[in-house]
Amino acid sequence: MPQIAFCFLNTNAIVLDNDRLKLAFIRTINSKVRMIFIQVAPPQMSNVVTMMCGACSNENAMKHMFISYQRKIRGNDTDYTETEMKTSITNLPPGCPELSILSFYESFHGRTLGALSVTHSKAIHKLDFPAFDWPIAHFPKYKYPLNENMCENDKEDDRCLAEVEELIEKYRKKGKPVAGIIVEPIQAEGGDNEASPIFFQKLQLIAKQNSASLLIDEVQTGCGVTGKMWCHEYFNLPTPPDLVTFSKKMQVGGYYHTAEMKPSLSYRIFNTWMGDPGKLLILEEVLNVMQQEKLIENVNKVGKKLMNELFHLQYEFPSVINSVRGRGTFLAFNAADSKMRQKLILKLQELGINIGVCGERSIRLRPALTFQERQASMFLDALRGAITLVLA
Amino acid sequence: MPQIAFCFLNTNAIVLDNDRLKLAFIRTINSKVRMIFIQVAPPQMSNVVTMMCGACSNENAMKHMFISYQRKIRGNDTDYTETEMKTSITNLPPGCPELSILSFYESFHGRTLGALSVTHSKAIHKLDFPAFDWPIAHFPKYKYPLNENMCENDKEDDRCLAEVEELIEKYRKKGKPVAGIIVEPIQAEGGDNEASPIFFQKLQLIAKQNSASLLIDEVQTGCGVTGKMWCHEYFNLPTPPDLVTFSKKMQVGGYYHTAEMKPSLSYRIFNTWMGDPGKLLILEEVLNVMQQEKLIENVNKVGKKLMNELFHLQYEFPSVINSVRGRGTFLAFNAADSKMRQKLILKLQELGINIGVCGERSIRLRPALTFQERQASMFLDALRGAITLVLA
Repeated sequence: MPQIAFCFLNTNAIVLDNDRLKLAFIRTINSKVRMIFIQVAPPQMSNVVTMMCGACSNENAMKHMFISYQRKIRGNDTDYTETEMKTSITNLPPGCPELSILSFYESFHGRTLGALSVTHSKAIHKLDFPAFDWPIAHFPKYKYPLNENMCENDKEDDRCLAEVEELIEKYRKKGKPVAGIIVEPIQAEGGDNEASPIFFQKLQLIAKQNSASLLIDEVQTGCGVTGKMWCHEYFNLPTPPDLVTFSKKMQVGGYYHTAEMKPSLSYRIFNTWMGDPGKLLILEEVLNVMQQEKLIENVNKVGKKLMNELFHLQYEFPSVINSVRGRGTFLAFNAADSKMRQKLILKLQELGINIGVCGERSIRLRPALTFQERQASMFLDALRGAITLVLA
Repeated sequence: MPQIAFCFLNTNAIVLDNDRLKLAFIRTINSKVRMIFIQVAPPQMSNVVTMMCGACSNENAMKHMFISYQRKIRGNDTDYTETEMKTSITNLPPGCPELSILSFYESFHGRTLGALSVTHSKAIHKLDFPAFDWPIAHFPKYKYPLNENMCENDKEDDRCLAEVEELIEKYRKKGKPVAGIIVEPIQAEGGDNEASPIFFQKLQLIAKQNSASLLIDEVQTGCGVTGKMWCHEYFNLPTPPDLVTFSKKMQVGGYYHTAEMKPSLSYRIFNTWMGDPGKLLILEEVLNVMQQEKLIENVNKVGKKLMNELFHLQYEFPSVINSVRGRGTFLAFNAADSKMRQKLILKLQELGINIGVCGERSIRLRPALTFQERQASMFLDALRGAITLVLA
């Protein structure tokens, strides 16, 4: 349609403004944004902010949490004092308060300086860059298979949650209160580390008890790959998380948030592009294809097959692979150690399979939503072949 | 071409990988990036990194400066110690050293947390958000017209440069050495504040003397609008700045840097998209049109006319407007005060002219590169009309 086409032309470099056309364009985009994003919104999250990429989505969602925290303290987010206005310009409190965001070891949330301060997966991302002194808690490390280690894994949840509470207390005393918690539903880059629904339910409760917001980063896990549109839907949270960020498969970055999180003043969260209308058209088509071809059902079907067969392989070859885990086709397993992983990867490559790694000894599956049972079989045959070759 | 088209399809959500196609795509994009960006690169800046937006361009360019600074200190940027690796994960020095970036009051460099720490234009951008304790110097405030206030303005340069040197010393003693300086060629959002070529030459010298890099933020001033492709070309710097960021008119964010700034390890600066191949095609066409229609010449011609007429108006109506300034069509003038500005803006709107503001009492011109003399006349007539109405 012509209004959409306009966005590709209005470069501000070679086209003059035309107010009527602009207004028509804005109306079209606004209704498109609503239509496209709200149809796949997490339950009870009716607000969406579009951004460019995952990092700036997390940066701005964190800003949202700071605004919300200060509003609770101050009673509003409109009556800024003269002192706040003045000190904010020079980076000093009270205008720029010393608030913090609690994050988890082995997390990955992006590589701009704010997002990097809550990222702890690899040294190469962080070396040489100054970072905020913010609290970092341990994320559960489960023993597998889950159904044989329930008691121990429950204790692991409790250990990590106790640390979260201690850190919130510690940073409050330190004068850097925790305004929000940022967490991945499955720590992807950190090694496909998962945590139980109960862990997330309790984490949300701790956040609420401490006036902190909960931001769930679904940049990797979002858009159907775990067998639900959003991975945190598995957690049965009693109320929605305060914010959910997305990017990657969603084509454009951004985040959903609850109505309560909305700042009173406009332009508190703003930038030049606020997303990309061109990508919106691609996303619209991606979501159409996902619905028409029932791709989330497909993910569940193929994921189940992959999971079953991987279980068989880990029981058959416990000296090579273990800790099969994940949801949908967002699956991973561990090699016995990092050397074994390297051997497996090379053998798989010889057999025509390119596969990614995460953490220190994990191998991760990240097929597209269109991945079929036939292709899953090809992969599983190759994996069996690679294991046999490694053991030979 | 089919390889380019592939980038619009490879959403990772619905299309499977195909290695040969992917390789062809990467080769095509790589040569496109080189061809498109290098033809308009600032002199002697042969490296380009593409990003998504202005904020993440500045964030990553700052990271580049931190890497470069630590390399000078350490002697290399490959042999990280065990302690550096370990502490970096927890945001602590020496892995995450307490380095700083020097910025200027009234600057604007973006609204992610790192970019915000070097932004000081408006409280609304910064309130409630924690920021790094980094040094902030005053940017020159000139008296106009320039040719009648040369002596005073020279002193203003020296005053600001002396402050830069003091702050570098102060933050070195504070244990937060300055790794880089970030500056706009014309402080755009802060009020179209300009500084002399000599100011920038001396600033570069101070940076060099202190092992700090110089990052010139051309997000607003880049891409021809000042009458040169890059505004800092007016400054006759003896050597190129270390980094130059761009976005907006360039369609895609990113930065140029000198060969010396290149990190030894790959993936030090990296993210999911590293720019947007789709936007590259639009930029290619924008640059073609700019060349075919000689739009930079046009900017110079129309800019000269605007400047001349604005000078006449300020001499004719000194109680209404003053301090006409700028380069190309990137021009601004001050209203007598902020109330007068409001009146002028409203009268201009009644006369069919929408115009932007910056700083506390400035009115800024930001026409597209295609803005013609005929349209400049329409604007100037309306401005004269608005001034007359305000005085009536």
